[in-house]
Amino acid sequence: MEELLQYVEERKFRLLRSRLAEMNEADIAEFMEELDDNKKVLIFRMLPKDQAADAFAFLEPDIQQHIINSITDAEVSKIIEDLFVDDAVDMLEELPATVVKRVMRTAGTETRQLINQFLQYPENSAGSIMTAEYIGLKKYMNVEQAFAYIRAHGVDKETIYTCFVTDGQRRLEGVVTIKDLLMNPYEMKIQDIMDENVIKAVTTEDQEEVVDLFNKYDLMCLPVVDHEERLVGIVTVDDVVDVMEEEATEDIEKMAAMLPSDKPYLKTGIFELAKNRIVWLTVLMISSMITGSILTYYEAAFAALPLLVSFVPMLTGTGGNAGSQSSTTIIRAMTIGDVEPRDILRIVWKEIRVAVVVGVILAGLNFIRLMLQYPGETLVCVTVVVSLMLTIILAKTIGCTLPILAQLLHLDPAIMAAPLISTIVDACSLIVYFQIACHLLAI
Amino acid sequence: MEELLQYVEERKFRLLRSRLAEMNEADIAEFMEELDDNKKVLIFRMLPKDQAADAFAFLEPDIQQHIINSITDAEVSKIIEDLFVDDAVDMLEELPATVVKRVMRTAGTETRQLINQFLQYPENSAGSIMTAEYIGLKKYMNVEQAFAYIRAHGVDKETIYTCFVTDGQRRLEGVVTIKDLLMNPYEMKIQDIMDENVIKAVTTEDQEEVVDLFNKYDLMCLPVVDHEERLVGIVTVDDVVDVMEEEATEDIEKMAAMLPSDKPYLKTGIFELAKNRIVWLTVLMISSMITGSILTYYEAAFAALPLLVSFVPMLTGTGGNAGSQSSTTIIRAMTIGDVEPRDILRIVWKEIRVAVVVGVILAGLNFIRLMLQYPGETLVCVTVVVSLMLTIILAKTIGCTLPILAQLLHLDPAIMAAPLISTIVDACSLIVYFQIACHLLAI
Repeated sequence: MEELLQYVEERKFRLLRSRLAEMNEADIAEFMEELDDNKKVLIFRMLPKDQAADAFAFLEPDIQQHIINSITDAEVSKIIEDLFVDDAVDMLEELPATVVKRVMRTAGTETRQLINQFLQYPENSAGSIMTAEYIGLKKYMNVEQAFAYIRAHGVDKETIYTCFVTDGQRRLEGVVTIKDLLMNPYEMKIQDIMDENVIKAVTTEDQEEVVDLFNKYDLMCLPVVDHEERLVGIVTVDDVVDVMEEEATEDIEKMAAMLPSDKPYLKTGIFELAKNRIVWLTVLMISSMITGSILTYYEAAFAALPLLVSFVPMLTGTGGNAGSQSSTTIIRAMTIGDVEPRDILRIVWKEIRVAVVVGVILAGLNFIRLMLQYPGETLVCVTVVVSLMLTIILAKTIGCTLPILAQLLHLDPAIMAAPLISTIVDACSLIVYFQIACHLLAI
Repeated sequence: MEELLQYVEERKFRLLRSRLAEMNEADIAEFMEELDDNKKVLIFRMLPKDQAADAFAFLEPDIQQHIINSITDAEVSKIIEDLFVDDAVDMLEELPATVVKRVMRTAGTETRQLINQFLQYPENSAGSIMTAEYIGLKKYMNVEQAFAYIRAHGVDKETIYTCFVTDGQRRLEGVVTIKDLLMNPYEMKIQDIMDENVIKAVTTEDQEEVVDLFNKYDLMCLPVVDHEERLVGIVTVDDVVDVMEEEATEDIEKMAAMLPSDKPYLKTGIFELAKNRIVWLTVLMISSMITGSILTYYEAAFAALPLLVSFVPMLTGTGGNAGSQSSTTIIRAMTIGDVEPRDILRIVWKEIRVAVVVGVILAGLNFIRLMLQYPGETLVCVTVVVSLMLTIILAKTIGCTLPILAQLLHLDPAIMAAPLISTIVDACSLIVYFQIACHLLAI
């Protein structure tokens, strides 16, 4: 990498060009991101024709925009025609309207129609992540004809390893892999080797369902059909890997009380970050005021025995953490399909038993500590220990139940994650604690 | 599915068998998991030979074990030979030692050697997720000879779409895809079309690095070499998809203060769940005792003005949530490579500005509420609002710094997630709050 930067510095462009020609496009994009803006365009123009579009697809949206603004219409047109439709659509979704207009004007009629069609699929749908470049065969072809067709048409297709068999109306009839073609004699008819049980998605289906299909069937590529069963595109496994990472990030963000962001952290503005965070912070702040008023309600108790207050952080903290563990476990297990809402009774029963095991150990540790630290105060120790035990059981029960209830109500279970569960458990544990204290200690 | 269960009920096995023959192996495995144990073996034996091993690979480990225990040695041997090595190794890692012994005894010498070699790679290394079945070509072959070789040897290979070119010592020299072969004339030599810049992994590398390579280069398949550069196996994208899901689950579990578990929730025992959760609960419980003693330290303050206590949950809760948001964002951004430790100053500066925006809004809301609820107590309101503002800034600074420090110290940043951050922020926010209260309110 430093060697390359040196070449740029010293304007050894011929040497640089020959080095770039043997590099992977992802590495070229990474190298370009290190350069200042003018150099980026310079280097981009230097790339061999066949690498330019591929490297372009790997660049960050703001750099793509800068390059498009700096090159001629003819060059823009060349890139757009060379990009796979899904990459072009990804890029256009990020660009400002004026730049999009210029790009669309330079694109050929056919490409423009295709891009327009793709831009209309709802965000995060199967349609929005598919590509239009696939190999379509006919069932009356034989293996030899199929190979001839692929040799003639395959260069521009994103994947040639799975071929799709369609009828005159473009309806999907079957699927045949290059492996099937290679393992069968030349004169064999496609209809005799194709698999008619095609696993497929519909354009409007959510991308999460597409990911689930890839996971379940270990697919390399999935055909996408419209509502009339006509084949309109394919989703390839490399796009699914991106979607999976995106979805995992979204889940993690939601579980930490944030609205999901779709931009890399360093490129997200201050106000957007603040906006994504303020909503849940406000909701949780208001909820924690309720906890505050519970404390006020028992003011007499801790006025009589100020020592009681010093155990509050331990009780609410442990309760919150115990509840978060359960809710996180269940939310994730539902996401990856390990548990379903109908398992609710098994889950609650399991969590209660886990809570008892964990509770007994923590209560025991605490009892020893309290008896050493406050030798005379046996009743206070019992109050704290019993409250801790009950808090943990309550926390784990609430923690595993609420995500399932959210799922049953068709809400996103991730909203029932750690922060909300902690707030709810805080309030409950305080009531349990002070009720026990008032009874046992007669205050 | 219900139709199939009906066939089993009514013992219509011929009909069932013909239906199973056209089903996908993942669906067959799902169907088998619905049956009781004896029926599972019955149905398994009914499967066409070519589907049996594939469906077996999709089954849960406990069902695999049950089936192995119920079938003859000859049948076990058949399955093991038909499984891809990586699937066989996955299975053996889950089975009890006695069953493993029986399985290894029935395997052919070559398979046994291969499995033994694979079982020795460290858990979660590139070696542990690779498979031995790949197509190896020689550079002096031409395209026609390559196709002939693939036709002769390809049926048992996990992927035939990427072929690897090795020399006499099995050292990796280049890579050529079926697409390259198809797009070039028959008489072209492999050495003229192969790509010599091969992206590869070493057997001992961590599987997370393998995932990063797949993500960065949009790969379908990655060769794995030993320390002498000899090709020993390949990792295919379907395995990487599994690893990604596993790693995301692990991150989420760690971020909710749990040790990661490698079994599905419903199959994990009570004591194992308790064990995974108790460690962090204990650590956090002890930390929250420190917070408790801070409260005790300021006992005089809240004895003088009990109202002060009722704002504690709101301050610590909001601080904890604000800190968790920052730490979660930074941990995730480091995992997916969006930020690096050297960005620390940019990150802290960004988080402080976000904290100010968020803090001003929340403090404002709070000030209005407090002035309405406690009209005379302006100084108390100011104390709460200033503490809230400082707590949020402190929380976001701590939240973004600690994960980066963990990374710099080569610790897993995920331990600096929500639960630990909340506990640390709790203690800090209490000190800030009571210090301000003592000064402003002169208690």
